[in-house]
Amino acid sequence: MPKTYELTGLGNAIVDVIANGTDDFLAKHGIIKGAMNLVDAERSKYLYDAIGTARQVSGGSAANTMAGFASLGGKGAYLGKVADDQLGEFFAHDMRAGGIHFDCTPLKNGPATARCMIIVTPDAQRSMNTYLGACVEFSEEDVDESLIADSKIIYLEGYLFDKPTAKMAYLKATKKARAAGTKVSLTLSDSFCVERHRADFQKLIADETDILFANEAEILAMYQTTSFEDAVKAVRGKCDVVAITRSEKGSVIVTATETIEVPVQPVAHVADTTGAGDQYAAGFLFGYARNMPLATCGALGSLAAAEVISHVGPRPETSLAQLAQQQKLAA
Amino acid sequence: MPKTYELTGLGNAIVDVIANGTDDFLAKHGIIKGAMNLVDAERSKYLYDAIGTARQVSGGSAANTMAGFASLGGKGAYLGKVADDQLGEFFAHDMRAGGIHFDCTPLKNGPATARCMIIVTPDAQRSMNTYLGACVEFSEEDVDESLIADSKIIYLEGYLFDKPTAKMAYLKATKKARAAGTKVSLTLSDSFCVERHRADFQKLIADETDILFANEAEILAMYQTTSFEDAVKAVRGKCDVVAITRSEKGSVIVTATETIEVPVQPVAHVADTTGAGDQYAAGFLFGYARNMPLATCGALGSLAAAEVISHVGPRPETSLAQLAQQQKLAA
Repeated sequence: MPKTYELTGLGNAIVDVIANGTDDFLAKHGIIKGAMNLVDAERSKYLYDAIGTARQVSGGSAANTMAGFASLGGKGAYLGKVADDQLGEFFAHDMRAGGIHFDCTPLKNGPATARCMIIVTPDAQRSMNTYLGACVEFSEEDVDESLIADSKIIYLEGYLFDKPTAKMAYLKATKKARAAGTKVSLTLSDSFCVERHRADFQKLIADETDILFANEAEILAMYQTTSFEDAVKAVRGKCDVVAITRSEKGSVIVTATETIEVPVQPVAHVADTTGAGDQYAAGFLFGYARNMPLATCGALGSLAAAEVISHVGPRPETSLAQLAQQQKLAA
Repeated sequence: MPKTYELTGLGNAIVDVIANGTDDFLAKHGIIKGAMNLVDAERSKYLYDAIGTARQVSGGSAANTMAGFASLGGKGAYLGKVADDQLGEFFAHDMRAGGIHFDCTPLKNGPATARCMIIVTPDAQRSMNTYLGACVEFSEEDVDESLIADSKIIYLEGYLFDKPTAKMAYLKATKKARAAGTKVSLTLSDSFCVERHRADFQKLIADETDILFANEAEILAMYQTTSFEDAVKAVRGKCDVVAITRSEKGSVIVTATETIEVPVQPVAHVADTTGAGDQYAAGFLFGYARNMPLATCGALGSLAAAEVISHVGPRPETSLAQLAQQQKLAA
């Protein structure tokens, strides 16, 4: 029987609060540039008082990927946890408005919906400060097993390993996926996240993952090397497909027997790199779900990433389906 | 004694929820194109369920003007009402982050912070749907008389006349201003707002206003004519200065004895006209507060309006002070 969903994402449901800032601002406030910095409620408040005027858009790594996947015309669902507050309403609205199935019961009487303060520096790099809020309550109970079974592929964030209950939810989802013939894809999320969970992630990659996404910093951190070639060698064959993004150098798709180099799509002006990896995964998985050749999957990833870095904000603002048609990458 | 603030704005404190939409969408949902449509809580929810993915940015006509004024380097304050919720926190953050004095005690146990759902059509026109929420509670008590007296100019929205308590607040502010030697400026806000309050506004213009802002549709509605020349004739001399914006035709500054035509600043791509009038007023009042010639005030208005229509969102995203310096319009 064909599955209802082509892709179901699981991740931290987050609203992004985006402000411009300088390198001096990052240094003054001890924010690690380019990283996802976890902050508690107190530091979140402190940083919010310090940042400039902001815009709010729905974010969250896997949720961004689902938005891109839906923009390409894919049929998707999402599992994550918001609170019963205005930010949670905003996040849920955007998922549903994008045509993504999202059936979360908002958390009552607990922490607020998660927010991520993103400082965009003049070089278009983004530095994130995430207060996980209600995401901490994302647990096995939130993993709808019938939805997992009814999905062709699931997509999971490495970030889920940052909280014990979310990690249990992750493992429940992969277990169900394997039993139901659902493919499992994983993004390593962030090099510091890899540092925190290296052993767990190595086990996940070897035992529970069909498709792995990583950027260069993450794959180097995973195998504790400074040589990209060595990292590729180390990961090759560990799962069916590994797609490694290398910023302006494009991406490399690695299987047991093949290495496919995919160029980037040129962008006139890079405004904000937030969501580049998320959108690459969206494009790649759209192609993969529709059984396209791996090189086409990579080209769709490049297309989606190029769109999102051309403006501020982590989700596509133009129809990726139309862009893909124009470039003859989709029907 | 010199006054502490160059400009204090009074208005509806609103968070904008911006989504793209088509003319068909507007027609289907009975939204008057280009207008500010007032909606109740129920219709607000209905429309929110109908609109596409959105971004949230702080808005509110006079608040947008204050943001532009501060971006030019002006010293400003703002009076308006938010609720004790996440949207209210967001609005307050943006005012303070912009360097604008905003000392509102958030409303507890009442309606939520006001929000305005703005549909931007492909022609860059914006159609607004405003749920006034906590703004309904803005009243005389919120008008800090010492702040009014300590401001060189106050700036008021015609929109304040849409609710009885806000109207009383308006009148208290103008009364105090006149007693304290503070100049009073008014924007007519919206042609439908003019229709609702024509007699009141005519009295305000004649008796309580030094500087009047209107766009072409508003000034025509005010004097119930289709002739721009007749409208100018009707308003001339009613207050010290009248600045009328005419979209791509530029603006016209009208005093008892003078008519100054001000060209627009060219914009490569008009993305969203939201905030054009608000930013024109910001630029104009910055020049006026610093005793610049009226033609320069108009040029600063054009500069600020051009910045804001070049991107989505109602407030400047680049430093207007730097733009003004580049164009030798400010020190």
